[in-house]
Amino acid sequence: MFRIGSGIDFHQLVEGREFWLGGVLIPHTKGALGHSDADVLLHAICDALLGALCLGDIGVHFPDTSSEFKNIDSKILLKRTYDLIEKEGYRLINVDTTLTLEAPKIKPHVEAMRKVIAEILQVTEKDVSIKATTTEKMGFVGRQEGVVAYATALLQKADF
Amino acid sequence: MFRIGSGIDFHQLVEGREFWLGGVLIPHTKGALGHSDADVLLHAICDALLGALCLGDIGVHFPDTSSEFKNIDSKILLKRTYDLIEKEGYRLINVDTTLTLEAPKIKPHVEAMRKVIAEILQVTEKDVSIKATTTEKMGFVGRQEGVVAYATALLQKADF
Amino acid sequence: MFRIGSGIDFHQLVEGREFWLGGVLIPHTKGALGHSDADVLLHAICDALLGALCLGDIGVHFPDTSSEFKNIDSKILLKRTYDLIEKEGYRLINVDTTLTLEAPKIKPHVEAMRKVIAEILQVTEKDVSIKATTTEKMGFVGRQEGVVAYATALLQKADF
Repeated sequence: MFRIGSGIDFHQLVEGREFWLGGVLIPHTKGALGHSDADVLLHAICDALLGALCLGDIGVHFPDTSSEFKNIDSKILLKRTYDLIEKEGYRLINVDTTLTLEAPKIKPHVEAMRKVIAEILQVTEKDVSIKATTTEKMGFVGRQEGVVAYATALLQKADF
Repeated sequence: MFRIGSGIDFHQLVEGREFWLGGVLIPHTKGALGHSDADVLLHAICDALLGALCLGDIGVHFPDTSSEFKNIDSKILLKRTYDLIEKEGYRLINVDTTLTLEAPKIKPHVEAMRKVIAEILQVTEKDVSIKATTTEKMGFVGRQEGVVAYATALLQKADF
Repeated sequence: MFRIGSGIDFHQLVEGREFWLGGVLIPHTKGALGHSDADVLLHAICDALLGALCLGDIGVHFPDTSSEFKNIDSKILLKRTYDLIEKEGYRLINVDTTLTLEAPKIKPHVEAMRKVIAEILQVTEKDVSIKATTTEKMGFVGRQEGVVAYATALLQKADF
């Protein structure tokens, strides 16, 4: 049996923060603001996985009011999310993502991100897609005030 | 045979309107503006279902220029949409949704929404996912001027 | 084996440009700004197809810094994208899209777009969905400064 899920996440970009994307530290003049490390791409993937199995959302599992998740590495959140998926007897077929941000270019970092994510989700890098686009200078993304990530995931009930 | 669909819907939030979301009346200082009851979540689900089977969109089936749909309960629109899906010989596997809104918190209402939607779509609540996120105060959603809903649906041709 | 992909594309709307959408020239006072013909719908579909098979994104394959793609008909880009999908041994099951734009109404052009896209992707028009919505006057789409397209695609490994 197959299931699909989709996730969206938003973070402000501000000076004085590290910019974590897809589990990788990106050199940039700004970073994403948030309670955790604010990795918008990993958060969107968490939500796509949780959504596919109707397990709530990232805010339910990892509330930003909990000190447990203060500045936490989102790779830990993704691992915990994947554990829930496995516990339900499912595995990931593929996940496709899009980052919308005006700068910097993330292409040089895509392979590193895919490697990190694939390892956590126990698939190969051929099952993890990371795409990127600007919003052509429009809106809060275009003004470099924020970053948005979208993820779509296909899961399958594992055979035992 | 499987098919996937996705839907997006937008409504302004204004004072003096009831706020219907996922078939449930949400206590709030504002409500969504629209020709029907403006239930952005049910509309996104309608569009995901119609899109999966290439049946047009909600505007084609339920035009906002028709008095028939003035202030109509969107649960009726979802039921009519599902009837079209059934007539094509398909059934819903799962639907995953995300609401983007700044306020109020919709978590207390999620179980009620899932129950309403599952009943109309003839699935269990384990097949209906409702996630929510703010846009971190950015854009028209962040300014509480509007609400946006996203839905992704997986359908399967029913066996006879 | 199935795979899913999703794509999003953004273009500014400006005076003095032709408005290409879904491979069809739309009569309008503005057109989409871009390096190619700026067909936001075909670009989103390209990205959904590439994303499903983790082949990078449209910017990787057809960079806007290359004179080869200056003012290019995006139908050529979609055809080249589909060739890559075929080379991987996959075929399209269905693609569902949403255009968000305030004006003009695209309903009169939807059948022509579906015909163009279905022919390139070697499916029938019953496998290509084009939906449209306004953003209820909100944001850069609502101010008619831009257009956004979303696409979701389901692919299947072809049997040999």
